[in-house]
Amino acid sequence: MVFIKGADMKIISEIKKLRKEITSARREDKKTGFVPTMGAIHKGHLSLIKAAVESCDFVIVSIFVNPTQFGEGEDFQQYPRELNSDAEICEKEGVDLIFAPSTEQMYPRKQLTWVNVESLSEGLCGASRPGHFRGVCTVCTKLFNIVQPDVAFFGQKDAQQAVVIKRMVADLNIPLKIEVCPVVRDEDGLATSSRNKYLSDEQRKDALLIYKSLCECRKLYEQGVKDTNRLRGKIEEVLGTSRAVEIDYITLVDAETLEQVSKVSGRNVLAAVAAKVGDTCLIDNIILESGQK
Amino acid sequence: MVFIKGADMKIISEIKKLRKEITSARREDKKTGFVPTMGAIHKGHLSLIKAAVESCDFVIVSIFVNPTQFGEGEDFQQYPRELNSDAEICEKEGVDLIFAPSTEQMYPRKQLTWVNVESLSEGLCGASRPGHFRGVCTVCTKLFNIVQPDVAFFGQKDAQQAVVIKRMVADLNIPLKIEVCPVVRDEDGLATSSRNKYLSDEQRKDALLIYKSLCECRKLYEQGVKDTNRLRGKIEEVLGTSRAVEIDYITLVDAETLEQVSKVSGRNVLAAVAAKVGDTCLIDNIILESGQK
Repeated sequence: MVFIKGADMKIISEIKKLRKEITSARREDKKTGFVPTMGAIHKGHLSLIKAAVESCDFVIVSIFVNPTQFGEGEDFQQYPRELNSDAEICEKEGVDLIFAPSTEQMYPRKQLTWVNVESLSEGLCGASRPGHFRGVCTVCTKLFNIVQPDVAFFGQKDAQQAVVIKRMVADLNIPLKIEVCPVVRDEDGLATSSRNKYLSDEQRKDALLIYKSLCECRKLYEQGVKDTNRLRGKIEEVLGTSRAVEIDYITLVDAETLEQVSKVSGRNVLAAVAAKVGDTCLIDNIILESGQK
Repeated sequence: MVFIKGADMKIISEIKKLRKEITSARREDKKTGFVPTMGAIHKGHLSLIKAAVESCDFVIVSIFVNPTQFGEGEDFQQYPRELNSDAEICEKEGVDLIFAPSTEQMYPRKQLTWVNVESLSEGLCGASRPGHFRGVCTVCTKLFNIVQPDVAFFGQKDAQQAVVIKRMVADLNIPLKIEVCPVVRDEDGLATSSRNKYLSDEQRKDALLIYKSLCECRKLYEQGVKDTNRLRGKIEEVLGTSRAVEIDYITLVDAETLEQVSKVSGRNVLAAVAAKVGDTCLIDNIILESGQK
């Protein structure tokens, strides 16, 4: 018998029905992999899905544009929703199940309970998006409790999110493993993001400066510069070459604790950028790996 | 073969070892019941344990004096710790496993992640114990993730705690059922509590006024008084007969939403008292069941 992966992918929107599917998968002792997404699936998500399909027996992708992680005036309404084409992509990749709940399924009553990771949520994107990580942590806790996966896959592109979620899982003893997969880039170097769709051709050219600035930073580091102020300066310099790029933050922090560091030494350093091009917020990052102390 | 309940109860202090035990119990499709306690097991806990043993195949009692739910100046240090006698009691009742972790097991690093139930945590005991329910919710989430029970048992004596935990479980989609068991009282009417040990004989007599005031309140209600101000007044009057009883709060609220109500009508009302006798904080409550609207 030939087993065709993805031949009968299910799309489920109700939590109760999902729990039933999960229970039978667990009965069969299948290793469950979970890729939480907000849909509009791009190459970045695909890399997570491929990693899940490769290492797990039962793969669930959730597609839910989570209102509680958007701030006022952010792009919750316009965020792309493309369930049909998303489902097609997932099926091709061998996903077993898409969980695509409505807002009413996920938040049937006023949400009073919030999961917050202090300190790690406060800098970087948390500074300009108050409440964002509280929304992310709360919805991830909910999804983890619904899906009960063995492994959940997150992208390094959302570096702070990955650090926050890993800490949350450890702090709350959530019984699952978090896998963080590398940043995926288009051929021109732009980190893939659902928000790239918002960019005009002209804006996309400006957006490329973000990755370029990180590459220049890395080059400088490889030339022996360890001082984070100088490394930060290089990023600023490159981004400053276009007036269309509005810097939100440029930050070099310990890759695990997200604490400010003055030198790349004895620990890996996350060099992260957030910038607005037009109305579109973009983020990107690289890790500067320290040698031995 | 005679199966002697409790014949081989295990006491486990490490999370890793506990997870192994849980996994095998789950493999055997056993219904797991969980009674989280801070130890110093009394008749109140016993009623929870008995309910668990009666309705579940595998019963776990946790004994952990959780530092994060005590405020500054509260009785964390002096809180009774009696693991040996607790274990004896549990074994007799047919408990399968005691989970008695150290603080280091439960909090191996600075806890950055907190679970908070807004609004429900703020009144009643939450008002005079800021952070208390945040600590309770966080440790319960951790314990639920470690033990992964099918049912967890809580006492109605801690009425606000029961409401908060039920809401947390619903809001976070935690896959378990919460059973709330009735208040257990000593023969003289005092609600059982680990803190009753702190009371001198004299103080115990004063403490009895708490339940007496609730009984008088119920009597008035049964006589047809539905106005919560008058019902509250009766409790105040009875407690006022001793200068040794220092009222923290007397409150009549919707038993589910904990919102203030002016009349017992169309919904059950929780009449709850917190008072200090000497240095000991005591709480008690009754439910005034409304008839039809």
